[in-house]
Amino acid sequence: MSAFHDSFVIQTRDQTEAVDITTRVNHAVGASGIENGIALISVPHATAGVYVNENEEGLVSDIVRVVREMFFQRSDYRHNRIDNNAAAHVASAVLGATLPLPVAHGGLVLGTWQRVFLMELDGPRSRTVDVTVVGEA
Amino acid sequence: MSAFHDSFVIQTRDQTEAVDITTRVNHAVGASGIENGIALISVPHATAGVYVNENEEGLVSDIVRVVREMFFQRSDYRHNRIDNNAAAHVASAVLGATLPLPVAHGGLVLGTWQRVFLMELDGPRSRTVDVTVVGEA
Amino acid sequence: MSAFHDSFVIQTRDQTEAVDITTRVNHAVGASGIENGIALISVPHATAGVYVNENEEGLVSDIVRVVREMFFQRSDYRHNRIDNNAAAHVASAVLGATLPLPVAHGGLVLGTWQRVFLMELDGPRSRTVDVTVVGEA
Repeated sequence: MSAFHDSFVIQTRDQTEAVDITTRVNHAVGASGIENGIALISVPHATAGVYVNENEEGLVSDIVRVVREMFFQRSDYRHNRIDNNAAAHVASAVLGATLPLPVAHGGLVLGTWQRVFLMELDGPRSRTVDVTVVGEA
Repeated sequence: MSAFHDSFVIQTRDQTEAVDITTRVNHAVGASGIENGIALISVPHATAGVYVNENEEGLVSDIVRVVREMFFQRSDYRHNRIDNNAAAHVASAVLGATLPLPVAHGGLVLGTWQRVFLMELDGPRSRTVDVTVVGEA
Repeated sequence: MSAFHDSFVIQTRDQTEAVDITTRVNHAVGASGIENGIALISVPHATAGVYVNENEEGLVSDIVRVVREMFFQRSDYRHNRIDNNAAAHVASAVLGATLPLPVAHGGLVLGTWQRVFLMELDGPRSRTVDVTVVGEA
């Protein structure tokens, strides 16, 4: 059994967007040498999130738009007196900044229509994605 | 330390419903031989989710209804031009398709009022539930 | 590799509030002796949750308020005929009662603006927080 850490950086381009990071996460999982176990994909950011779903262009924009409508359409956030990004924080807290996935045969276990996304909520920015893998080599 | 995978199939009956899968998950955890660690319950599906909460009939229907009202009552999803199930995808992304839980004494650590549920969002369908356990035998 | 369990109790003071538990979680992670791996922070409760975000007083109240507005402003919950706390259950199911985080160098891997919170949704109560760590000593 081993534990492995890796990370990579994504430059986002919009205030809110979802970026497919599956290939890079799978590369990190492969580099871990761990064949079976659990991979944790996480971001050390309070205004970004991670989720798993299909990479269809319309759907990706739908998910971003629904999250915007749930959290970005109000002006009464107290945090905005400090920093005008409260909606991004609340969305990150609800969506989640960490995503555990199974690892088998040295790669992520994903369904046919599942891909891993970084959700930018206060971009554009440079974002770090951490990949932690525990399991059997 | 070991890593263990198992899976089982649930046939859902409605478009949206929550199915208590605790007994089957606990059976998989027991079969793993792992006494202490973490179990990851996940679905390889982009239109289903997993959550933990109480199994009281009224509450189960409340949770399904609130999720429906949050995501199923709009007609402007772009993904619906491709496949008329965008609401199910968005709900799955927000609710989550993976659920980690502690394992102790060879079984799930759950509170008195906690049970594990599969949330069907685009049924009825045949759904796979994966159980991955890492820890000490 | 090892697996480790610890738990501690938090007395909450309001019906809904978010309590920063980072210091106590990090203490448990340190006591585990595990240097690299994954920590799972979980609550064995169906009317509480856990999340990670910034500890800025205004923001903490914003997150609690948004969750209240999403789930506490309706009176048609069926579960309320049994026990008048359905909103707390639904919020817990959606927010999540378990939170996995990376562990490196014997402590939680958190960004500059990330702290771990217990979200009380049906208090005030005495709440247990479980910390499970798997990885390499």
